[in-house]
Amino acid sequence: MERNPLLSLVGAGPGDPELITLKAIRTIGRARVILYDALANEALLEYAAPGAIIRFTGKRYGCHALSQEEINQLIVAEALEHGHVVRLKGGDPFVFGRAVEEITAARNAGIAVEIVPGISSALAVPATAMIPLTSRGTAESFWVTTGTTRSGSISGDVYLAAQSTATVVILMAMSRLEAIMDIFIYYGKADMPVAIIQDGTTASQKMVTGTVKDISFRAQQAGLGNPAVIIAGEVVGLQADLLPAYVQGLTATQKKPAPHEER
Amino acid sequence: MERNPLLSLVGAGPGDPELITLKAIRTIGRARVILYDALANEALLEYAAPGAIIRFTGKRYGCHALSQEEINQLIVAEALEHGHVVRLKGGDPFVFGRAVEEITAARNAGIAVEIVPGISSALAVPATAMIPLTSRGTAESFWVTTGTTRSGSISGDVYLAAQSTATVVILMAMSRLEAIMDIFIYYGKADMPVAIIQDGTTASQKMVTGTVKDISFRAQQAGLGNPAVIIAGEVVGLQADLLPAYVQGLTATQKKPAPHEER
Repeated sequence: MERNPLLSLVGAGPGDPELITLKAIRTIGRARVILYDALANEALLEYAAPGAIIRFTGKRYGCHALSQEEINQLIVAEALEHGHVVRLKGGDPFVFGRAVEEITAARNAGIAVEIVPGISSALAVPATAMIPLTSRGTAESFWVTTGTTRSGSISGDVYLAAQSTATVVILMAMSRLEAIMDIFIYYGKADMPVAIIQDGTTASQKMVTGTVKDISFRAQQAGLGNPAVIIAGEVVGLQADLLPAYVQGLTATQKKPAPHEER
Repeated sequence: MERNPLLSLVGAGPGDPELITLKAIRTIGRARVILYDALANEALLEYAAPGAIIRFTGKRYGCHALSQEEINQLIVAEALEHGHVVRLKGGDPFVFGRAVEEITAARNAGIAVEIVPGISSALAVPATAMIPLTSRGTAESFWVTTGTTRSGSISGDVYLAAQSTATVVILMAMSRLEAIMDIFIYYGKADMPVAIIQDGTTASQKMVTGTVKDISFRAQQAGLGNPAVIIAGEVVGLQADLLPAYVQGLTATQKKPAPHEER
């Protein structure tokens, strides 16, 4: 058994493999085991040390996805056997990342934990599409939500957000888009601009813009689905002014994730 | 006059110089001119190309700070004369970064613009202190605000945020802390936990925790001031459970910014 077990929760960023931090790269390079999620770009596995054990924990290509409980057990088992485990998660580990459950499992097994923040898609995806989350006089705050409670019902927070000047960023919510937009309509915001960006910051990025009242139809017509970022707010209207200045979104290194391979 | 003027708005991250992205490092390295803010860690200037022109635009050590209008003019003048200008901003350029004004000035002068997202202190500072912004069953969303409108009055959004389950992250608001906490008290949240973290993710980090009703007094006793991140929400209470597992916050490369030098 390894004497110094360690769990590093590492943010893999929003998709573009250049939007990873130096700290994440160095942490990946020190790990003995890397457990990575479906939303983490596999290009980042290149930073792993030779001989590191690399395992995929998500659901893809019909493979069985591990449950959160199974992931927690795997983290503990690998850390106790091999020492340093990196848990590589899409975006930032503390933004809808089930990090608390993984940290608690590690702590209960006497495993030390460190956090390496990542670039959240909630911020980087609109930014790369030239939609500022805040802008003086237009939006004084921003609100990030999945729109639902643990039980799957629409969160009461959405009713409050719909009344605010906040830019509302909604993650993993394509199946509830219409129900969420109905709340904004109820508060008199049928004509507020909305953008939906699928696979943001990657070469396969797709974007649809519209208003609260027509965005569900437009998204359906365009065939958009998760992973997508929904941005509702007046700042979306600034995009038309800002985008003509925009030259560069995608870097040469950007590409779709390679087909999943267990190593 | 340079034929291909370009403005890159680059996020410098929250303070820890390892919390910068690969894309930011490469962009800094290609620039002919770097204009950096007070909140951008000067250690990042090491990535500048030899011969790059480096200018500080913030207020420090009694120097005159440039106004936003002067910064806009400087960006345009430097880009037209030298070509590629990097505007290096603390955190993420689109989170309270006045980015829209700089992009508009560039666009009006025919200068192309690119955005390189950064790690926002709103996310990374609580994460590094083991405070998750979301946690299933505790906080289903998070809200980031400065607490004020353009005119300096308390934003109506704070009244909505205080009624929600959202973790509320408040930036640059130490002078209005008591007025903001009073709103949470009004909505029956006097005992909700609050943390304030000054100089988060750096070696000089200081943290105070308490509740809505006593945090102003505690922060004053501890002498905390801006730049600080205020986190109000039940997730702050998770820190006591999670922190014992925490081993590592500061990397060997972290240090206070060096005294300002014009190069």
